[in-house]
Amino acid sequence: MPRYTAPTKDLSFIIHDVLKATQSGIPGYDELEADFTAAIFEEAGKIASGLLQPLNTIGDREGCTLENGVVRTPTGFKAAFEQVKAGGWPGLDMPEQYGGQNMPALIGTAVGEMFSASNQAFTMYQGLTHGAASAILAHGTDAQKDMYLPNMVSCEWTGTMNLTEPHCGTDLGLMRTKAAPQGDGSYKITGQKIFISSGEHDMAENIIHLVLAKIEGGPEGIKGVSLFIVPKFNVNEDGSLGARNGVAVGSIEEKMGIHGNSTCVMNYDGATGYLLGEQHKGMRAMFTMMNEARLGVGMQGLAQADAAYQNAVDYAKDRLQGRAVTGTENPDGPADPLIVHPDIRRSLMEQKSFTEGARAFLLWGATLIDAAHRSGDNDADGLVSLLTPVIKGFVTDQGYDMTVKAQQVYGGHGYIEEWGMSQYTRDARIAMIYEGANGVQALDLVGRKLAQDGGKHVMAFFDLVKGFCKDNAGQDEAFDRDFIEPLKAASKDMQAASMYFVQNGMKNPNNALAGSNDFMHMFGHVCLGLMWARMGNAAREALVGGASDAAFYETKLATGRYYMARQLPATALHLSRIQSGAETVMALDAANF
Amino acid sequence: MPRYTAPTKDLSFIIHDVLKATQSGIPGYDELEADFTAAIFEEAGKIASGLLQPLNTIGDREGCTLENGVVRTPTGFKAAFEQVKAGGWPGLDMPEQYGGQNMPALIGTAVGEMFSASNQAFTMYQGLTHGAASAILAHGTDAQKDMYLPNMVSCEWTGTMNLTEPHCGTDLGLMRTKAAPQGDGSYKITGQKIFISSGEHDMAENIIHLVLAKIEGGPEGIKGVSLFIVPKFNVNEDGSLGARNGVAVGSIEEKMGIHGNSTCVMNYDGATGYLLGEQHKGMRAMFTMMNEARLGVGMQGLAQADAAYQNAVDYAKDRLQGRAVTGTENPDGPADPLIVHPDIRRSLMEQKSFTEGARAFLLWGATLIDAAHRSGDNDADGLVSLLTPVIKGFVTDQGYDMTVKAQQVYGGHGYIEEWGMSQYTRDARIAMIYEGANGVQALDLVGRKLAQDGGKHVMAFFDLVKGFCKDNAGQDEAFDRDFIEPLKAASKDMQAASMYFVQNGMKNPNNALAGSNDFMHMFGHVCLGLMWARMGNAAREALVGGASDAAFYETKLATGRYYMARQLPATALHLSRIQSGAETVMALDAANF
Repeated sequence: MPRYTAPTKDLSFIIHDVLKATQSGIPGYDELEADFTAAIFEEAGKIASGLLQPLNTIGDREGCTLENGVVRTPTGFKAAFEQVKAGGWPGLDMPEQYGGQNMPALIGTAVGEMFSASNQAFTMYQGLTHGAASAILAHGTDAQKDMYLPNMVSCEWTGTMNLTEPHCGTDLGLMRTKAAPQGDGSYKITGQKIFISSGEHDMAENIIHLVLAKIEGGPEGIKGVSLFIVPKFNVNEDGSLGARNGVAVGSIEEKMGIHGNSTCVMNYDGATGYLLGEQHKGMRAMFTMMNEARLGVGMQGLAQADAAYQNAVDYAKDRLQGRAVTGTENPDGPADPLIVHPDIRRSLMEQKSFTEGARAFLLWGATLIDAAHRSGDNDADGLVSLLTPVIKGFVTDQGYDMTVKAQQVYGGHGYIEEWGMSQYTRDARIAMIYEGANGVQALDLVGRKLAQDGGKHVMAFFDLVKGFCKDNAGQDEAFDRDFIEPLKAASKDMQAASMYFVQNGMKNPNNALAGSNDFMHMFGHVCLGLMWARMGNAAREALVGGASDAAFYETKLATGRYYMARQLPATALHLSRIQSGAETVMALDAANF
Repeated sequence: MPRYTAPTKDLSFIIHDVLKATQSGIPGYDELEADFTAAIFEEAGKIASGLLQPLNTIGDREGCTLENGVVRTPTGFKAAFEQVKAGGWPGLDMPEQYGGQNMPALIGTAVGEMFSASNQAFTMYQGLTHGAASAILAHGTDAQKDMYLPNMVSCEWTGTMNLTEPHCGTDLGLMRTKAAPQGDGSYKITGQKIFISSGEHDMAENIIHLVLAKIEGGPEGIKGVSLFIVPKFNVNEDGSLGARNGVAVGSIEEKMGIHGNSTCVMNYDGATGYLLGEQHKGMRAMFTMMNEARLGVGMQGLAQADAAYQNAVDYAKDRLQGRAVTGTENPDGPADPLIVHPDIRRSLMEQKSFTEGARAFLLWGATLIDAAHRSGDNDADGLVSLLTPVIKGFVTDQGYDMTVKAQQVYGGHGYIEEWGMSQYTRDARIAMIYEGANGVQALDLVGRKLAQDGGKHVMAFFDLVKGFCKDNAGQDEAFDRDFIEPLKAASKDMQAASMYFVQNGMKNPNNALAGSNDFMHMFGHVCLGLMWARMGNAAREALVGGASDAAFYETKLATGRYYMARQLPATALHLSRIQSGAETVMALDAANF
C-alpha cells in the first residue's frame, strides 16, 4: 500500500528561503513567520498522511455508487470529510467574514498540494466548493454571499461547476441548456450537463450548482451564456433548507480513475436558478472559477507526481535486484537495491527535479495571485494570467509522465492494482483533460495570452529572467556554469520562439498554433529553470552562510544541476519544432488520415 | 465502441514497395507475390475487425475469474479461439512438419500486428504458445518436439513462460524454484512463479509450461538455472493426456489492463518436469523465447498505437467543436470538426508518423530474422540482435505515448471507460514492463549489444544508413532536403553518442548506463528516420513512375516529412543528455532521495 509524507521542509524552504514571503510586502504575508507556517504544514501533513492517504486506495476500489437517486461515496469518506471540516481546512484562504481564516493563496496552495497528493478524488469535493464559492464571492450580490458563502466556506454545503454538455465541451457557444425568466428574478433551468465532478453525493446537506445556461431570446453563441446558482435544496430566507429543486443525478460515469469522486450526469428539469453576475456575462463569471480551477489542476499534476515518486524511491531502496556495475554496494545481501542502477537513478532524478521545481512554480504563482488580489498589483495579475495555462498544461502533462515513470520503477508490480502505482497514473491522467484539455491551454497561451496587452506580460517574464541572471551571476563560477548559463540559453530559445510567432503567425495563424503545445512545454521548462536557479541560489547562499543542514542544501543544488543539465535543454527541441512551422502539420487533407 | 481496420494497404506497400520482399533472395520470399500476401492480409483483417475487436471491450470489462481452481476467460473468447485455430492462424509461420504453414516471420509479424491491435489480451494466449513452441523447436529433443509441437502449433495446447518469482524479476539468479532429479530423467519442480500470462484458462485441453528452476546441487546464481517442460496434464507415450501434474494456479492478478488475459500465480508442488536443452543452460534456451517475445511486445506497442489512432481520427472528424482559425470549414454545421485545429493535427500526425514508421521498422526486423533463420545470414542475425531492445523499448514507450495522445483527442470522453480509449492506454502500458522492463532493454542495448563482436553490428547499421543516403541522394532536391539531410544529421548524433560511450564508458561505466535510455530512444528515432527515408523514396519512385494511386504516395511523403521535421530532431536532445554524463545522475546519496 502506498504511503505519503508531506513535503513540509521543502515547502518551508521555498516559501522562506526562496520566495522570502515575509519580506514581500504583500498584505498578510508579514504574519507568515517560519514557525507559524511550519505548524500549519505539520497539521495539514498529519491529515494528509494519516486520514486521507489510507482512504485513497479504498476510494479507488469501491468507487461511488448510485442507487435510487442517492450517490454513496466510498467507505470512510463521509467521516473524513467531517474531520476536515472540523479542522477548518476548507476555509483556510477564505474571508473571515464568511467564516474563513483569510490566509493567502500561498498557504492554500501548499496545503492543497498535500491533500491532493494523499487523495485527489476526495479533495476534489472540497476543491470544487472552493471554486464555486470564489465565483460567488467575486460576482454575487451581498444577499447571495450571505445566503451561500458561510455554508460553502465551511463545506457544510459543497459546490459544483456545470459547463459541459454531451455535444459541447470546449466550445460552450453550442450550449443548449436554457434559462427561462420567471418574472420574480428567478429562472427555470432546463438541460443536461455531463462530467459534473461531485455532482451528487452523501457528504453534504446541500449542493450549490453553478450552471451555465442561455437565457431565452438572448444573443447567439457564447455571448448569450449566463451563470446561475442552482441549489439542490432551495434555501429559505432564514437560511434553512426548503424544498428539493428540480435537479437530479441521471447517472454516474465509469472512469479510468478518480473513482472516489462522483462524476455525474446532471439533469435540470425546470430547476429554479438565480443569476450570478450579469446576464449574458456567464463566461466572465465562470472564468473566476476556471482560472482558480486551472491552477488547482496544475497542483494536482504536481501532487500525484510527488506521491508516486515517494513510493518509487521506497521501492528502489527496498527491492534487491542485480549488482551495481561499479562494484557491489550491498555485499551482505543477495543483490543490490534498484537505486544503485544508473537508469533507475535517471528516472528518480527526473521525478525529483520535476516535483521540486513544479512545487516552487506553483507557490510562486500563488504569490502572484496574492499580489494581484491583496496588493492590487496589475503586473502580477497579468503575469499569472499568462502563466495559468503553463501551470495547468505543462505541470499536468509532465506530472502524468512522472507517475508513469514512478510506476515503471516497480516493474511488473507496477501493473498490479494491489501495489497502488497504477492508481497514481489513472488519477493523474484526468488532470491533462479537465478544466480545459491541455491542447486548449496551449491555444489559450499562444492564441490569446502571449499577445495580451501588447505582449507586455511575456516581456516582463523575460525581464524577470534577465534580472535574475544579472543580479546573481559572477559570484560563483560553478553556479554561473551550472545554473545561469543554461537558464539564459533556454530563455533565448523561448525568445526565438516568440519571435517566430510574431514574424510568421500574422501571415498564417497556423504557424503559431501548430507550435502551441511545444511553446507551452518550452515555457514550462524555462519557468522550472528559473525556479531551479532561484532555489539553487538560495541553497548556495545558505551554504555560504554556514547553514546547519548542509546536506539539504547540497541536495538541492545537485537536484537543480540535474534539471539544468538534462531537462532544460528540451527547449532547443521545442524551438526546432516550432520553427518548422505549420506546413508539415497541416499538409494532409482530412480524408488522408 | 472503438473500431479497428486492418492496415492491409500499408502492409503491402512496406513489404512490396519498400522491402521488395520477393527480390530479397530469402528462401520462401519468392512466394510472397502481392496478390498472395494481400489475400492473407484480407482474411486476417476480417478476423481482427470482425471477430477479435468486438471481444476487446468485453474482455476488458469482464476480465478472467478464478473459481475452484478453474479460470474462466471472458464471454466469447473460447469460441473465438476455436475459430482462430480452425483458420490455422497460430501455425502460420511454424514448420509444416508440425502442422504449420511455414510462412516467414515477415508474414507472421504482419498478421500478429492485426490480431494484437484488435485484441491484445486475447492474442497473448496464442503469442505465448508460439514462443514456447519456438523454444521447444530450438532446444527440444526429437521426442519432445513430436510430443508437444503438433498440439502447440495448432493451439490445441497453449504454452506459458515461467520466469518471475515474487522476489526476483530481472535478476533471475535469485531464483528459488527447485528441480530435483528423479533418476528416470524427469525432475520434480517445486516453487512459486508469478505474473504468468495465460497461466491457467479454459480455452485449451492442456497447457505446456516452460519453467526456469535450479537443479539441486548445481552452480550458484544464474549459471545454475535450467529450463523445464511442465505440462498441466502429463502426456502419455501415445500422445493422449494422462494424470494432472502437480501445478496449479494460486490466484489471478488484478491488473491495470489486459484483463482478458489471465495473469496467474502458479504453484509448482513437486510437479513432474522434463529438461529442455542442457542442464544449467536454461537462460540460453529461455532467450530463444525472450527474443521472439521482445519483438512481439514491440509489435504490441505499435498495434495499440495504431488502433487508438484510428479511433482518434474518427473522433476528430466527427466531433464538432470550435472554428478553424483560418476560416470556417463546415459552414453548414454548428462548428468545425476537431481535425481542423492545428494542435489536434499535430497530435494525429505524431501518431500517424509513428505507427507507419514503426510498422516498417517491425517488418524490416522480421526480414532480418528470416534472413538469419532461412539464409543463415550471420550479419542479419547480429543486426536484429542489436535492434531487438530498440524495437522492444522504443516502440513500446512511444506506442504507449501515442495511445495517451489518442485518448487526449477525445477530451473528457477519453477518460470515460464506455468510449474505450482508456483501455488502449491501460493495455499498452504493460508492453513497457513485461519481457524485460524498458530500462533493462536500454541496459541490454548499451551494456551488451553495442559492443558485441567488437561493435561490428552498430557499425553495420551506420553503414546501412550511409549507404542509403549515398545511393539515393542527388535525384530530387526536395527529397534530399526533407529526408536525406535530417537522416544524416540524426545518424551523426547517434555516432557522436556512441563515441561518447567509447571514450567515457571505459573509465566509468555509469557514463554509458546513465545515457542508456536516451540512447535507446535516439536509436529508435534513427531507425524510424531510416524507415521514413526508405518509404519516402519508394513513394517518390512510385510517383515518378506514374503510379495510379498518387494520393496514397503523396500522403506517405507528407507523413514522412512530418516525422523528419518534427520527431527526428529529438536525437539532438538525447545526445546532449548523454553527453552530460553520469555526474548529475549519480550525485545523490540514496538517503537524499
